[in-house]
Amino acid sequence: MHKARQLIREALRAGATALSEYDSKRLLAAYGLPVVQERLACTPEAALAAAADLGYPVALKACSAALSHKTEGGLVELGITDPASLRRVAVGLQARAPAGSALLVQQMVAGRRELVVGLVRDPGLGPVVMLGLGGIFAEALADVSYRMAPLAAADVAPMVAQLAGWRIFGPYRGMPAVDIEALAAWLIGLGQIGLQHPEVQQLDVNPLIVCGSQPVAVDALVVLAGTPAASGGSGAPLGAPAAKGHRGRHARPRRSLRPLLAPRTVAVIGASATPGKPGYEVVRNIEAQGFRGRIYLVNPRGGLIRGRPVAASIAELPRNIDLGIVVLPAGAVAQAVRELGARGVRAVVLAAGGFAELDRNGATLQVELERAVQETGIRALGPNTSGHVSTPARCTSSFFPLGTVPRGPISYIAQTGNFATHSLRYIMSHESFGVAQIIGVGNKVDVEESEVLEYLGADADTQAIFVYLESLARPRRFVDVAREVTRRKPVVMLKGGTTAEGARAALAHTAALATDDRLLDGVLRQAGVVRIRRYSHLVLAAKALAFMPLPRGNRVGFAAPSGGMLVCLTDLCRRSLQLQVPDVAEATRQRLQDLSPPLVRLRNPVDIWPAATLHGPHRAYAEGVEALLGDPNIDAVVVILMLTEPTGAFAVDFLVELAGQHPDKPVYVSFTGDQALMAAAKAYLEPRGVPTFPLIEDPFEVLDIAWRCSQARAPGPPPGGSPGPRQV
Amino acid sequence: MHKARQLIREALRAGATALSEYDSKRLLAAYGLPVVQERLACTPEAALAAAADLGYPVALKACSAALSHKTEGGLVELGITDPASLRRVAVGLQARAPAGSALLVQQMVAGRRELVVGLVRDPGLGPVVMLGLGGIFAEALADVSYRMAPLAAADVAPMVAQLAGWRIFGPYRGMPAVDIEALAAWLIGLGQIGLQHPEVQQLDVNPLIVCGSQPVAVDALVVLAGTPAASGGSGAPLGAPAAKGHRGRHARPRRSLRPLLAPRTVAVIGASATPGKPGYEVVRNIEAQGFRGRIYLVNPRGGLIRGRPVAASIAELPRNIDLGIVVLPAGAVAQAVRELGARGVRAVVLAAGGFAELDRNGATLQVELERAVQETGIRALGPNTSGHVSTPARCTSSFFPLGTVPRGPISYIAQTGNFATHSLRYIMSHESFGVAQIIGVGNKVDVEESEVLEYLGADADTQAIFVYLESLARPRRFVDVAREVTRRKPVVMLKGGTTAEGARAALAHTAALATDDRLLDGVLRQAGVVRIRRYSHLVLAAKALAFMPLPRGNRVGFAAPSGGMLVCLTDLCRRSLQLQVPDVAEATRQRLQDLSPPLVRLRNPVDIWPAATLHGPHRAYAEGVEALLGDPNIDAVVVILMLTEPTGAFAVDFLVELAGQHPDKPVYVSFTGDQALMAAAKAYLEPRGVPTFPLIEDPFEVLDIAWRCSQARAPGPPPGGSPGPRQV
Repeated sequence: MHKARQLIREALRAGATALSEYDSKRLLAAYGLPVVQERLACTPEAALAAAADLGYPVALKACSAALSHKTEGGLVELGITDPASLRRVAVGLQARAPAGSALLVQQMVAGRRELVVGLVRDPGLGPVVMLGLGGIFAEALADVSYRMAPLAAADVAPMVAQLAGWRIFGPYRGMPAVDIEALAAWLIGLGQIGLQHPEVQQLDVNPLIVCGSQPVAVDALVVLAGTPAASGGSGAPLGAPAAKGHRGRHARPRRSLRPLLAPRTVAVIGASATPGKPGYEVVRNIEAQGFRGRIYLVNPRGGLIRGRPVAASIAELPRNIDLGIVVLPAGAVAQAVRELGARGVRAVVLAAGGFAELDRNGATLQVELERAVQETGIRALGPNTSGHVSTPARCTSSFFPLGTVPRGPISYIAQTGNFATHSLRYIMSHESFGVAQIIGVGNKVDVEESEVLEYLGADADTQAIFVYLESLARPRRFVDVAREVTRRKPVVMLKGGTTAEGARAALAHTAALATDDRLLDGVLRQAGVVRIRRYSHLVLAAKALAFMPLPRGNRVGFAAPSGGMLVCLTDLCRRSLQLQVPDVAEATRQRLQDLSPPLVRLRNPVDIWPAATLHGPHRAYAEGVEALLGDPNIDAVVVILMLTEPTGAFAVDFLVELAGQHPDKPVYVSFTGDQALMAAAKAYLEPRGVPTFPLIEDPFEVLDIAWRCSQARAPGPPPGGSPGPRQV
Repeated sequence: MHKARQLIREALRAGATALSEYDSKRLLAAYGLPVVQERLACTPEAALAAAADLGYPVALKACSAALSHKTEGGLVELGITDPASLRRVAVGLQARAPAGSALLVQQMVAGRRELVVGLVRDPGLGPVVMLGLGGIFAEALADVSYRMAPLAAADVAPMVAQLAGWRIFGPYRGMPAVDIEALAAWLIGLGQIGLQHPEVQQLDVNPLIVCGSQPVAVDALVVLAGTPAASGGSGAPLGAPAAKGHRGRHARPRRSLRPLLAPRTVAVIGASATPGKPGYEVVRNIEAQGFRGRIYLVNPRGGLIRGRPVAASIAELPRNIDLGIVVLPAGAVAQAVRELGARGVRAVVLAAGGFAELDRNGATLQVELERAVQETGIRALGPNTSGHVSTPARCTSSFFPLGTVPRGPISYIAQTGNFATHSLRYIMSHESFGVAQIIGVGNKVDVEESEVLEYLGADADTQAIFVYLESLARPRRFVDVAREVTRRKPVVMLKGGTTAEGARAALAHTAALATDDRLLDGVLRQAGVVRIRRYSHLVLAAKALAFMPLPRGNRVGFAAPSGGMLVCLTDLCRRSLQLQVPDVAEATRQRLQDLSPPLVRLRNPVDIWPAATLHGPHRAYAEGVEALLGDPNIDAVVVILMLTEPTGAFAVDFLVELAGQHPDKPVYVSFTGDQALMAAAKAYLEPRGVPTFPLIEDPFEVLDIAWRCSQARAPGPPPGGSPGPRQV
C-alpha cells in the first residue's frame, strides 16, 4: 500500500491524469497481483538487454502516462523472436511514439483465454469491481458483472456464474479451469485498491490472460483524479452523489420514523369540509382505518369537519403531536413545516406536488422546504407523495379514497404515487392479501428509501418488502441496509428507468461498460435483493409471499391437463427460469402410476388428463397433488386446474388441506377451462391462503422470484457455483 | 463445382471421412471464396521454398485428412518470422504429426475479428448455413445464427442482427465495417456447396478472419459421408427424417383436405346413445355447430341415437361420404379405415389414443393403420387427436362437449389435444374472438402440419394462423409452405420441447452448435414465421390479431395514470421488445399540453393523472388517446385505463369510436383499479372489437408479436439491418 501510494503521489506531482502502463502494473504488483514480467527501457540497446534477460519471444510497447490506447495507435508489437527484429521494432516505435515515451519489454504470456477486470468509482456506490470477457469482443458483447468493494471470496463464483461466457472459466477446450482463488485475489485486491486510494478513479486490466489456470495482467491502466472530491467523470450516478444532501444534512442524530409511520396523534393541516378534496378524503381515510389516536384538523375557517372541531391555525394545536399531514399548496408548505416544528410536531407528510419534479420555481421551493425541515429537525415524507398506509397503526396519510385497507404481511416502498392510490385499489379488489406498510417516498427531502428499508427490516408486522424505485438517494447506504435486511426477510425490487443509462467518462473499459443498470444489477445481487422486471410481479409475487412459505429448493412438481402445457411449462422452467423439473422418487412414481390408466406412464410433470378420464378430475388432482407434495425431491408444487362444465366442476378444498399438511412447500394454482368456474375457485382458494394466478406461466415466474428470495435469505451467499440461466 | 466434385471423389476413394485442411480450402476456393494463401509441402526444404514464395511471417501446420483438431494437438505454429525458425518448427511438427501428414505453409492473415461460418446437413431441413462469432469464445458463447440453403443476399443482414455480438460487424474499435456483400458470398456459397454435394455432411470455417473488411478462411474442415443416404450423425432431427414416411407414402397425388375439414356428409363410426361418451358427444357437437349436411351413425346395436337412425355396420352406409369420424378403440381402427375406404369415404378423423405415443404394441397398431390409410388412399387426421373444428363448415370431430363455437378469423394447428377441448372452452368463456378452423394433428399417420398450413394459407375464412407443435413431420416442406403463407397472412408458432435438444455427432463446430432449437429458430425467421415462447400468447395474440390491424411500424404511443407505470413500460419496450416509444409531433405535444395543468409537461408516453385531476379521467383519456392516434409518428396505441370508484366510472365507448376512426392503427387496452369496473369495461370493449389484456405488460408483448407479423408480411425480408434487442 505504501508503494502504491508513492506511485500515485509521484504521478500526480508530475501532473499526470493516469499511471503509465508500467506503473499501473507496479501498483497491481504492490498488492500481490501477478503481472507479466517486464522491463522499462529508454533506448533500443537497453531494450535488447532487457529482452536477453527476460528471454525471447517478447512484446515491445511504447509506454508513458499519456498513452492509453496503444493498440489503436500502432505502438505495440507482439511476438518478437530475436534481437535483430527487436532493434528494428524499437527504433520504429520510438520514432512514432510521443516524446518522452519509454520502451516496455515484456515476456509473451501464453494463454488463449482473455479476461478483463477493473475498477470504477461510482459517485453513489464508491469503488465497484468488474469481471468480464476480455479480448476483441469485450465491448461488443459487454459480458461483464460488477460488485461493490469490499468483495468477499464468496462474491466471486456468482460473478462468474452471471456471465454468458461462464463456461470458459471451467475446464474448456483442453484448458484447465481458471484458479478461482487466484481470480478472487484479483477481484478482492482491486476492491482494496479502490478503498485505499481515493485518487484511483478507474482501473482496467485488459487483457488479464489466463496462463494455464493463473490470471496474469498483461496490460493495465490506472486513471487518477487529483483529489478524491474531483469525482469520476460526468456520468449520472445512481441517484444523487452520496456525499451530498442526506449525509451532510443530518449532523444531529435522526429521530425515529415511528411518529411518522405509527403515530399516536395526527393533525391534518389544510383539512377540508368538501368531499372529494384531498383535505377531506385524508380525514375520511384515517377514520376508515380505525385510527385509535386523536385527530386534529387545521383550517383558517375553523368550524366542524366530519363532526370534528377545526383549529384555525397550527399555533392552536396542542404541543408534541406525532404526525402532521400537510395538504396545502406547494408555496405554503415550508412555512407550515416551520410552524409545525415550532409546536413540537415530530413528523410530517407533505402531499403537494409542484416542487423539484416540476420546474425551476418548484426547485427553489424545495430548497426552502429542505431548509425548514433541516432547521426544525422534523422528520418529513415527501413532498410530491400520495403518502403512506400503516395497517398495524390503523393510520394513513393518503388522500386517495381507499376504504379500509386489509392488514397483512407485505410492505411496499414506492417512488410513485400509485401505490397508495389505484394500485392499492387494484390489490384490494383483485387480491386477498393484506398489507402492513405502504410508503411513498416522493421527492425525498428527508426520509428516503434506505431509512424506510431499515425501518421495515425491523418491523415485526412486515414479512416481505417490495420496492419500486426510479433512483436511489443514497445507493451505498441502501445496499448496506439491504444486505442486513435480506438475511431476515425477502426484499424484491423493481427499478424503473433502467433503459436511461448514465454515460460515464470512459477512459477505461470498466467505466465504459459501467452503465447504471449493470452496476445496480451487481450490487443488488450482492446484497441479496431480488430484482424483478415486471410491474405486475409487484402484486403477483407479493401474493405468493403473503400466502405461502419460500421454497427450500428450486425443484418444482406440477400437474396440468395437457401434454402440450406440460412441455411448454417445462421449457419455461429450464430456459428462462432457475427452476428444475426433477424426476420424482420411485414411490411417488408408483403412486402416480396407480392413478393412471394401464400403460400410460405418469411422472413429473403430471399429465392429469388420462387419470381424470379414469377417475374424474377431482380424484386425479387430489391424489396427483398429494403424491407430488409428499415427494422428497419436490420443493414446490404448481397445479394447473382444468375447470370446465363438461368435465364437471369439483370442490378444490383438497388444495387448502394439502397445503396445510405441507407448510414447508409452496402450492400455487392457475387454470384452464371455463371462466366462471375459475373465478369461483380463486374466490374459494385465496381467502384460504392458496394463491392463484391468471395465466399458466405466472405461477412459475413467481416461484422463480420466491426461490431467489429463498437463496438470498440462506446463510452466506446464494449457491451461485452451479451456473444456470442468467436472471433477467 | 467440377473441381469440388473431384476433391470429394478422391477423398472418398482414399477411404477418408473428411477432406484435409488444404483440400477443404481448395473446395472453398473452387466456389470463389477467399482463403488464405498457402502451399502444401512434404519436406522441411519444400516448406522453406514455399515460405520464401509466400513471404514471412508464416504459419506452419501439420495437414492430413485424419487431423481435425490440430490446435489442441500442438500441430500448429503461428508467426514464424524467418527460415531458421521455420526449419526447426517443420522438423518438430513432422516428428509429432501422424505418419503421412504433410506440412502446410500459410501466410499470416492480419485481423483481430474472428468469425465462424459453416454448414450442417440436417436430416429434416437439408443443408443449413451458420454464421457466428469465432475464436476462443465461439463454443462458450454459442453466438450463432442459422439459415436454410439456398440463402438469399437478403438473409444475411438478419443473420448478423440476430447475433449478440453484431456490433463487431460494423465499424468497430478503429476497424472498418465487414464487407456485407463479401460475407453474403460466403454464406450463399456454403449453401450452394451443401446443395450440390450431398456427400458434404458438415463444413466448418473457423476462423474466418476479417482482414480489413474482407473475410478470409484461415482454417477449414469438410466432413464427408460415403453416400448421401448415410446421413449426418446420430442426432435427433427436427421430427422424423424427411425422406422417410410421408414422402414415400404418397406416390399417388394426394386428395384434397376439403372432405376432411369442410365435409358435406359425415358418418360417426362408434356412435353411442350414452351422454358423456365420445361417440355421443361428437354427434351433439356436430349438431351444436349447425351442420347442414347429412349425419350418418354406425353402431352394431342399430336403433336411434338423438333421434337419428343408426346403421349396424359400415357396409350399410351410402357410398362416397366425405368424412368418417372413428371413435373406436385403437385395436379396431385399422379395420374400420379399410371398410370406410371400401365404401368410398374420402377422409377420416381417428380419435383413439393408444398408438405409437403409448407403447410398442401401439406402435405396431400404428404401422398397421398407416398401411390401411396408404392402401385405401383415404385422407386421415390422427390418430390420438381430439379432432378438428371448422366454423365455416359448421362441423367438428371433437368429442369434448363444446357448445356452439363462435366463428372468427383465427385458425389453430395443434399437436396437442387441448385446443379442441379445454383451451377452446377457455377461449369461448374468456374471450370474444371467434375461430375459423382448429386442427389437432395427433400422431400424423397421414395429414401433417405442412399440408394443413397450406390449406389454411388458401382458406378465405382464415386471417391468421397460430401453430403449436412439438415436432415437424416434414420440416423442409413446412418451412417452404410457411414462406409462401406468411406473405399473405400471419403465422405465429409456439414450438414445445425446445429444451430437449438433439445432440449431433459433432466433428465440426457448426454441427456441435446446431441444436434443433437454434436451427429451427433460424429457418422460422427465414420463413417469416413469428415464434412465440408463451402458451398464453396463443390466446392473447390471437385476440389482438382477430380484432385489430397489424401495426405498420413499431412506434407505440401509450397512456397510463402513473409515472411509475410509464417508466416501467418504456423499459419493457426498449429492453425486451422491438418497440419504440417515440416523441410525438409538435402539434400533438401541444394538444397534450393543452389538456394538462399548467407547467406539467405532457408527451409520449402520456401520464393521464394530472389531466384527469383537471378534467376528470373520461376527458383526459378521450383526448389523450385521440391525440396519440392522430399523430403521424405513432403506429399503435396502448391505453392503461384507470377505473376506480373514487375517480369515477366512465363510459369507454370513445375507445371504440377512436379505433374505428383509425382503422390502420391497433388500439390495445389494459387496466388498473377496481376489478368490477375492469370486468365491465372488458365486457363492453371486446365485443366491439377493442382487445383488452389482464396485466399491463401483456398489450406490449402482444403488440411486439403483431409487429413481427407485420414485418414478415412486408415484401422482402424484414428490415433486420438495424439490430435491436434479440427476440426471445
